[in-house]
Amino acid sequence: MHSLRVKLKKRSYEILVGNNILVSLGRHLKKLALGDTAYIITNALVKNHYGNLIAKSLRRYGFGLKFRLIPDSEKSKSLKIASSVIKDMTRYAGNKKLFVIALGGGVVGDLAGFVASVYKRGVPYVQVPTTLLAQVDSSIGGKTAVDLEEGKNLVGTFYQPRMVFCDTRTLKSLTPRQIKSGLAEIIKCAVIRDKKLFLYLEKHLLLILELKPRQVERVLLPAIAVKARVVEADEREEKGVRTILNFGHTVGHAIESAANYRIYNHGEAIALGMVVASDISREYGFINNKTQERIVTLVKAAGLPVRIKKVGLGGIIARYYQDKKFVGPKNRFVLIRGIGKTKIVRDVPLQLIKKSLRKTIYSQV
Amino acid sequence: MHSLRVKLKKRSYEILVGNNILVSLGRHLKKLALGDTAYIITNALVKNHYGNLIAKSLRRYGFGLKFRLIPDSEKSKSLKIASSVIKDMTRYAGNKKLFVIALGGGVVGDLAGFVASVYKRGVPYVQVPTTLLAQVDSSIGGKTAVDLEEGKNLVGTFYQPRMVFCDTRTLKSLTPRQIKSGLAEIIKCAVIRDKKLFLYLEKHLLLILELKPRQVERVLLPAIAVKARVVEADEREEKGVRTILNFGHTVGHAIESAANYRIYNHGEAIALGMVVASDISREYGFINNKTQERIVTLVKAAGLPVRIKKVGLGGIIARYYQDKKFVGPKNRFVLIRGIGKTKIVRDVPLQLIKKSLRKTIYSQV
Repeated sequence: MHSLRVKLKKRSYEILVGNNILVSLGRHLKKLALGDTAYIITNALVKNHYGNLIAKSLRRYGFGLKFRLIPDSEKSKSLKIASSVIKDMTRYAGNKKLFVIALGGGVVGDLAGFVASVYKRGVPYVQVPTTLLAQVDSSIGGKTAVDLEEGKNLVGTFYQPRMVFCDTRTLKSLTPRQIKSGLAEIIKCAVIRDKKLFLYLEKHLLLILELKPRQVERVLLPAIAVKARVVEADEREEKGVRTILNFGHTVGHAIESAANYRIYNHGEAIALGMVVASDISREYGFINNKTQERIVTLVKAAGLPVRIKKVGLGGIIARYYQDKKFVGPKNRFVLIRGIGKTKIVRDVPLQLIKKSLRKTIYSQV
Repeated sequence: MHSLRVKLKKRSYEILVGNNILVSLGRHLKKLALGDTAYIITNALVKNHYGNLIAKSLRRYGFGLKFRLIPDSEKSKSLKIASSVIKDMTRYAGNKKLFVIALGGGVVGDLAGFVASVYKRGVPYVQVPTTLLAQVDSSIGGKTAVDLEEGKNLVGTFYQPRMVFCDTRTLKSLTPRQIKSGLAEIIKCAVIRDKKLFLYLEKHLLLILELKPRQVERVLLPAIAVKARVVEADEREEKGVRTILNFGHTVGHAIESAANYRIYNHGEAIALGMVVASDISREYGFINNKTQERIVTLVKAAGLPVRIKKVGLGGIIARYYQDKKFVGPKNRFVLIRGIGKTKIVRDVPLQLIKKSLRKTIYSQV
């Protein structure tokens, strides 16, 4: 088992990564002394896979526990569901000393983190991410959120977990498409901050796609480290450092949204966003053709899309302007000036964004 | 105008206190640079009194603004209303850089603070308390909350305001009962931490009840200072220091709740709680009869109840055990060992609590 620490003074915590480590969850929780009863937020699918294992591990260390199931859907990440979960917690709590476990992917993690952050002004919570995307990205850094009909992630908090517990064995139950979606965030971490990781990905991509434990850990750990170091430098996204994690996300979110969250999942949209952002970087002369091509080649080799299909330029641009990161007419773009090096550019001309988008949009002409 | 600083490192802020200062709100907001548009959460009554004055002051300094009215009722402090306010903010926001103003009493302050803390993971907010209770207590310290049907304050955050702006002139529009309710918290601050304030209250109570600006400020400022110093020492109620603010609240909350929040308002219930807590302190031998009588006399002179009517012992004890501050079978009582000195006692025997309650419950035998 490997361990990485996110250093945030009183809010510091460990990220544990290993293969087949769920069996030891109870022992690790015991050391943290978060409470006597675990309120485990998850979905039916994940509970079917790991519920018994986790319950056994927790009971062995004297924990009481309750599983609270939410539908396995992005729609579960709503203020309405959060409210219903909190009410259920209240009724269940009695005199117990509760803590929350987020067991699942990004939806469960964001929702459970939010619920834990506001229930009685905050109870401790632990992330047990079971998707690659959640292990490398959403479980780390304390961003919690739920959606409103008016838009995604409009309600949330910054609230750090007390531990992140990544069992790479849980990845075996993912679909290939889910694996690739997580890989997109790993590639992003490499592109913005870790050239060695990029080189490793170029060489060993097939073994990673086959989920060989050694190779998966070999890319998961440095990607998590990138995220952890950035979060340490700018916990609440106030200093402009955490912004670099949005590489590929500015355009990616617009594509996801223009496609009504149907055609592309998060990782796929981010893959497309990275293709566009690296092309804009090339247009600025920050990177050469070869570097841009290497990025596109890696994204493609990971089985991720590099051409935008079924979504038009107009739709993407319209959504782009609605992004909550763009207050006022100004934008702030994360570009790169080499593999592993970012450059934040303000006020990228719309014409340039459109030009790179047009190149990326698939056309049969 | 007087100014007091709450020192919480990056989250420090000023509490401004003065008579007839609302007219300068815009100027003070301008210096803080919180955003370009104020989303003002209030109720119709308060808006009728001060809406025009505030709008004029803000517009003079270039702020856009919107008043969002919520019903003037404890029922407005619900997750449902919070959700509806957030949705309204989202629709109104567009490309504006919003900040929130909580204009009103405790209900508005707790709700607006909560909304500000979770909207887009936190936007700045300012407290403009218009009741004595809110000026001396709820607007300071960053505790935000909304109620569930299952109980009060079950959902909330710790989220500090960027300024607290107390115009004592707004107290003129309060009912005498509201003034007395605020006085209960001022008396509490004196009893737990400020003997000089207690002596001043004993001497000048009538002028304070008549809302003479000089005398009101003379008690408001030290009471606010007590709250501010305690919050500085224990922002998130983790170190046991902030607990002393609960003097009179343990039993007080139980009385409020047993009376279904109808017979007693918050200050009145706290007054009764202080009578009981000081009697328990006397039973322990921490204070003598004379000291206990001085407290009861001051509470009574402030027009606050010192005898519990229309609520029975059984009901109070039952609610007492439901209090969220009592996890498990143990209790933690804030007692006093003199005017201005507290002592936290664990596991006060139920028999002792009952004994002091019985003495305080009005009986016609």
